[in-house]
Amino acid sequence: MANGSGEVVRNRQVIFRDYVSGSPEETDMEVRESALELRVPEGSNGVLVRNLYLSCDPYMRIRMRKLDVPSYRESFQPGSPIIGYGVARVLESGHPNFKKGDLIWGITGWEEYSLITEPETCFKIEHIDVPLSYYTGLLGMPGMTAYVGFFKVCSPKKGETVFISAASGAVGQLVGQFAKLVGCYVVGSAGSKEKVDLLKNKFGFDDAFNYKEELDLDATLKRYFPEGIDIYFENVGGKMLDAVLLNMKLRGRIAACGMISQYNLEQPEGICNLMNLILKQVRMEGFVVSDYYHLYLKFLETVLPQIKEGKIVYVEDIAKGLENGPAALVGLFSGHNVGKQVIMVSRE
Amino acid sequence: MANGSGEVVRNRQVIFRDYVSGSPEETDMEVRESALELRVPEGSNGVLVRNLYLSCDPYMRIRMRKLDVPSYRESFQPGSPIIGYGVARVLESGHPNFKKGDLIWGITGWEEYSLITEPETCFKIEHIDVPLSYYTGLLGMPGMTAYVGFFKVCSPKKGETVFISAASGAVGQLVGQFAKLVGCYVVGSAGSKEKVDLLKNKFGFDDAFNYKEELDLDATLKRYFPEGIDIYFENVGGKMLDAVLLNMKLRGRIAACGMISQYNLEQPEGICNLMNLILKQVRMEGFVVSDYYHLYLKFLETVLPQIKEGKIVYVEDIAKGLENGPAALVGLFSGHNVGKQVIMVSRE
Repeated sequence: MANGSGEVVRNRQVIFRDYVSGSPEETDMEVRESALELRVPEGSNGVLVRNLYLSCDPYMRIRMRKLDVPSYRESFQPGSPIIGYGVARVLESGHPNFKKGDLIWGITGWEEYSLITEPETCFKIEHIDVPLSYYTGLLGMPGMTAYVGFFKVCSPKKGETVFISAASGAVGQLVGQFAKLVGCYVVGSAGSKEKVDLLKNKFGFDDAFNYKEELDLDATLKRYFPEGIDIYFENVGGKMLDAVLLNMKLRGRIAACGMISQYNLEQPEGICNLMNLILKQVRMEGFVVSDYYHLYLKFLETVLPQIKEGKIVYVEDIAKGLENGPAALVGLFSGHNVGKQVIMVSRE
Repeated sequence: MANGSGEVVRNRQVIFRDYVSGSPEETDMEVRESALELRVPEGSNGVLVRNLYLSCDPYMRIRMRKLDVPSYRESFQPGSPIIGYGVARVLESGHPNFKKGDLIWGITGWEEYSLITEPETCFKIEHIDVPLSYYTGLLGMPGMTAYVGFFKVCSPKKGETVFISAASGAVGQLVGQFAKLVGCYVVGSAGSKEKVDLLKNKFGFDDAFNYKEELDLDATLKRYFPEGIDIYFENVGGKMLDAVLLNMKLRGRIAACGMISQYNLEQPEGICNLMNLILKQVRMEGFVVSDYYHLYLKFLETVLPQIKEGKIVYVEDIAKGLENGPAALVGLFSGHNVGKQVIMVSRE
């Protein structure tokens, strides 16, 4: 329950300065310190937490824009901390679902301490025999995104061909592993030799290529998929999507998860090959993970044993220290990260 | 059964001259006459028919291209007659499902007489208390397209908002009427005042507009759909699709039926707003009616009574004479037709 008064601490925060156009830069954020009384305000059902890990996710770029139409996310508030997914320890709770000492994951602030005012959107972490940072990735939003995007949106069948763009990222690396577990033929694209090696040697993709070295993506895809693509897990948009549309098989499915190549453009690239949706009777479906969180426990039951048996692995790129958050976030859009980008705020 | 020999007749044909780039012209086809023996060849299970009505459909433009990838339709054969849907009378049958005198609809040639070599793809016409030409439209491929595209792909619910482009065409006029029967709010776009009047006054659309008079389609759609669009029945592609994407509601559905605005372009226009599929969790699905013909009898059972009760009406634009076929087909792409474009070959 909420206390009358609490210790006052210095709270370092990563502040969002103003709406961004073009490529985000570190200077679009600034690290500030403010004072915070460590208590849940009278009458609040929030929880006060110490943030341990923060998640850098491509969708956050969308929130840096001034969004003029209501969509699935609101803009960040200039002058306030960046907000996003994180793992945190409850210091004090005004909410019956949580108590002091609990570990949770969910939407929190880019700061050392946060008052989470809608804790009912957070999940309590029950399994701590895996790295806690996994709850920003494999066992958090990106993991669920891979799971529902692949199984619910793509309806995969054994033997089908699967292509994944941004395949070594937080979501892609898992989609590929899920697809292999189903018995699909899986190819991924990424932006460096190191990432391509990871895809082939660590994540067990059947094949992978560095899209930056390919001059004609249509020809590239025809080389890897001479019979065409049944399932495309779309993370990048732009030219890759246009090339994929030329290579979809009859009744193929495209799970539209993200379009990271387009987020920094004021005017997105035009996609010319949509007629192929009709010619090949393809379904292209946008989805967001928040529609599926009721499946989270089922997801955990499926994935936790696979992690423990080594059937699913996960690569993280952990930046240490809140002050390195802006660089880590900005780096996502040039592919600087190798694997899931996480910020470690505190080891406790 | 096939006879030994038959009468020899003069058979006028509309010949496809060569692959077309850009806008098709009448001169891409020519009317010729050849001699035909009115018999089914020995050993063939084809049916010999006299063609009564032929159908002009936008998808036929795709078959005028040299298609380098296998898709749902093959190219027309230069030097051979145009082929497409039609209504015909069986003169002689080598197939157990059909007998002399039967009326059928299905794929036939643009000529007075055709030997249909795959008659199992044709439907026998059992109900003749409606205009026979309806089997090229309302009761044929376009009608089924409207039915399955709307009910199976769009999953409409009462009270939803529906937008239809090329709304007075063979398919659009029916989609709108189906949507009104479900209890949706329905707006259509078309390319002339006459067509807009038809939509509002004959087909019962809630509203309609002439897209040629709108400078900013996004603003236009916001005017007609201030709360957004639940269902878009896509017949045109291009700029209209891009504007629609900006106006879809959460979990909207787009049935991609055709993109007539793009068929004459060597390089289709780029679509920039696909990110809205993700932001609004929209499903966009290409479909072809041939996947759904097993539902044809159910469709007839639904629609025939509605026609007889005057709940569904249909507007046709009938060109008289095979020699007027090329102009009728070419006219589709400039919106010359008002309603379903049919060619009457013979009254019998």
